[in-house]
Amino acid sequence: MKRTFLFAVTMMVMAGCATAQNTLKLPEPDLNVSMTLTQALKQRHSSREYSDQKLSDATLSIVLWGANGINRPDRKLLTAPTAVNAQDISMYVCREDGAWLWNAATNTLTQVCEQDVRGPLAERQESMKNAPVFLLLVSDYSKFRGNAETYGPMDAGYVSQNICLICEALGLNTVPRAMMNKEAVAKALGLNPDQHLMLNHPIGYPVKK
Amino acid sequence: MKRTFLFAVTMMVMAGCATAQNTLKLPEPDLNVSMTLTQALKQRHSSREYSDQKLSDATLSIVLWGANGINRPDRKLLTAPTAVNAQDISMYVCREDGAWLWNAATNTLTQVCEQDVRGPLAERQESMKNAPVFLLLVSDYSKFRGNAETYGPMDAGYVSQNICLICEALGLNTVPRAMMNKEAVAKALGLNPDQHLMLNHPIGYPVKK
Repeated sequence: MKRTFLFAVTMMVMAGCATAQNTLKLPEPDLNVSMTLTQALKQRHSSREYSDQKLSDATLSIVLWGANGINRPDRKLLTAPTAVNAQDISMYVCREDGAWLWNAATNTLTQVCEQDVRGPLAERQESMKNAPVFLLLVSDYSKFRGNAETYGPMDAGYVSQNICLICEALGLNTVPRAMMNKEAVAKALGLNPDQHLMLNHPIGYPVKK
Repeated sequence: MKRTFLFAVTMMVMAGCATAQNTLKLPEPDLNVSMTLTQALKQRHSSREYSDQKLSDATLSIVLWGANGINRPDRKLLTAPTAVNAQDISMYVCREDGAWLWNAATNTLTQVCEQDVRGPLAERQESMKNAPVFLLLVSDYSKFRGNAETYGPMDAGYVSQNICLICEALGLNTVPRAMMNKEAVAKALGLNPDQHLMLNHPIGYPVKK
């Protein structure tokens, strides 16, 4: 028993996971963003180059809210619908200082891992890993009674489109990607077998030319 | 006997489908819609009641463009991304006068069926079938070399979120639904086995109270 516990702790440390959970409070998202919906749809495109300029907490807060934030606080309903209102999608903010799980209700980030997983997320597309932030979408299949293999990807699509659009409105580059080293990322984040990696979004400002 | 019955059913199905393909040209979508993206995200919600007021061709044209229209005409790229740029999602406009396949490049509707399939689309949710329009999203799995069961639903999610948002901006009610009588709808529309029914969106103006 004791040996098992020690082994688990050793594995967590080896995986670079934070034992003390750091939590960051993000500023309230400022929703006074002037771009119209149709303009964002007009501009929506995939862009694969990012400068090393970091996103401020204020900007990150708007991106996260737009992606899958609470838009009806009384009932905790979200900007993106989910099948049978399962609310199965979690978002992780992955950057140089580790991976952080976003809590929409408190608008906080809780560190789940000190490791920089942008490399395993970029996988073979080396140039991607310099994006200052990757948003990672994970579906928890245990929230469905059936059809999780269909509903999980569908729900990730809703959130991913919100990310595409809010990035356009904020002048940020992004691209939705299914490619990643899933095994390495799931291990670093300590995901359970019900938590399925769906998509990742490198996000950054355009490179000045 | 059995053969006669099958023959009769085949003839009935054929009779329900348009033999001469009617085509309607829609007006150019007027993209001067004032709602901001963040306001549309704030308002995004599912609404299940629709008045019987019909959508004009002009309004339908904006909804279709927003959902999955061409936003970069030089390369025929769309408002919604698709995995490996497969562009697997087709949209059918289903209403009292039959089912119509939308062609994004020409902004035309081609009738595929004279039958009103809103009943089989509403299925057990009887009240839905009075929505003047259902948009039906179909993924063509033959456009993928693998992972179609994941990418098809994901791609439908992107388009579906666009529909949710553009409907908010135009003052229209909608809800994304996976429920439908798939067998009846696929048969009426003459879909092939690679064409998978993903989601449907009843769309209409709110009921005046």
